[in-house]
Amino acid sequence: MYLCIDHGNSCVKAGLFDGERLAGRTVYRHFGREEAEALLESNNIEACIYSTVAGRADEAVGCLQAGCGRFIELTHLTPIPIANRYATPHTLGNDRLAGVVGATYLRPDTDLLVVDAGSAITYDFIDAQGNYWGGGISPGLDMRLRALHEYTRKLPLVEIADDIPLPGHDTPSSILSGVLYGIAFEIDGYIERLRAEHPSLSTFLTGGSTFYFANKLKNAIFANENLILIGLNRILQYNNA
Amino acid sequence: MYLCIDHGNSCVKAGLFDGERLAGRTVYRHFGREEAEALLESNNIEACIYSTVAGRADEAVGCLQAGCGRFIELTHLTPIPIANRYATPHTLGNDRLAGVVGATYLRPDTDLLVVDAGSAITYDFIDAQGNYWGGGISPGLDMRLRALHEYTRKLPLVEIADDIPLPGHDTPSSILSGVLYGIAFEIDGYIERLRAEHPSLSTFLTGGSTFYFANKLKNAIFANENLILIGLNRILQYNNA
Repeated sequence: MYLCIDHGNSCVKAGLFDGERLAGRTVYRHFGREEAEALLESNNIEACIYSTVAGRADEAVGCLQAGCGRFIELTHLTPIPIANRYATPHTLGNDRLAGVVGATYLRPDTDLLVVDAGSAITYDFIDAQGNYWGGGISPGLDMRLRALHEYTRKLPLVEIADDIPLPGHDTPSSILSGVLYGIAFEIDGYIERLRAEHPSLSTFLTGGSTFYFANKLKNAIFANENLILIGLNRILQYNNA
Repeated sequence: MYLCIDHGNSCVKAGLFDGERLAGRTVYRHFGREEAEALLESNNIEACIYSTVAGRADEAVGCLQAGCGRFIELTHLTPIPIANRYATPHTLGNDRLAGVVGATYLRPDTDLLVVDAGSAITYDFIDAQGNYWGGGISPGLDMRLRALHEYTRKLPLVEIADDIPLPGHDTPSSILSGVLYGIAFEIDGYIERLRAEHPSLSTFLTGGSTFYFANKLKNAIFANENLILIGLNRILQYNNA
């Protein structure tokens, strides 16, 4: 089994792959030595890749490094099966890189936009020739709701709900209307702007908020919650070949 | 002269009106007794309206109350020249109310959307019959940039710049691309969604970030930095009549 770990700003996702097939997935709020040991004990792990955009889980990493035959910590120096044209590869979030690798693996030879709606929303463009060019970063759903509350004097912290009116008719529904539809309009706008230059563009949507936006978009997208893990597995296989 | 004061989350704006004409405008970072006294001393102020969505500048308000012939502190109980259909008028930001009053004064008998791009971005819809229905609230430009930095481990606080590439090619330009174009796409999306139901819709854009977005939108808008002050003056005149 191959173990792929995506350490994000709000959680850590571990995916177990049997070849190309995602055999299991666990989401952790905390990922330390105990969690890493449990993964090693209950699975026959041949190789592991660890990617973080948040802090580094030192104890867990040490444990995985010792317990796996092959261990890769993803950096901008790790060999990858695409050409990274980002101007500053050392500042590129590893999850963004893994996302485009996953997308080109699932749909090769296609101009692709990857939208990762997590703590932040990232937009990443990779062309049909496998050149990754960069994209955009904006605040995610929870971050927008939290900022409205914490950075103003009077706005409440609103819980996400369904059936949001537009226009909103009171303060909570106005916030949800502004934030949820706002993100949907932002994603559609990004897709349409890129498609004007790349008419054959396909879009993947991934990340923790995929569920909220997949059915609010005008444009067709491929929703895939596991795109980052799939990309990490692809990078691991590429380096293990 | 009529003095109109719009106390927002990041600054306080004071407008001096000679009838309908905005004769002068001052923006304050701090608005206390001294600033209020200076306004009273150097102008012949007949009436004053004070509106806040942040804290209440008690000392300044006391001073204006004592020094003006007529003083109104805007609340949800203040008589206004439109019908407020918001479900919870007591939680409606005064600036949102003043914005739609200003917009219908400038373009009466028209379905109108007011977009106020300040600390927060507010969207407010008022129909051609003068019924205000509500709208949306999302984080403003500075708030999004600040949240990306403060709520993540690795993203920098980026300064606003011009000529933003899409896609962004490094981390600062990716953040600006995601945030600036994201807001522009959000505003265009809101306009288009409302126009689908109200084909004759006109849109006003106001607030501190007007400058950044006025030329990034697909849809035609009326940019007017002073819409809130104009609305406050209209409410003051309406109550003084």
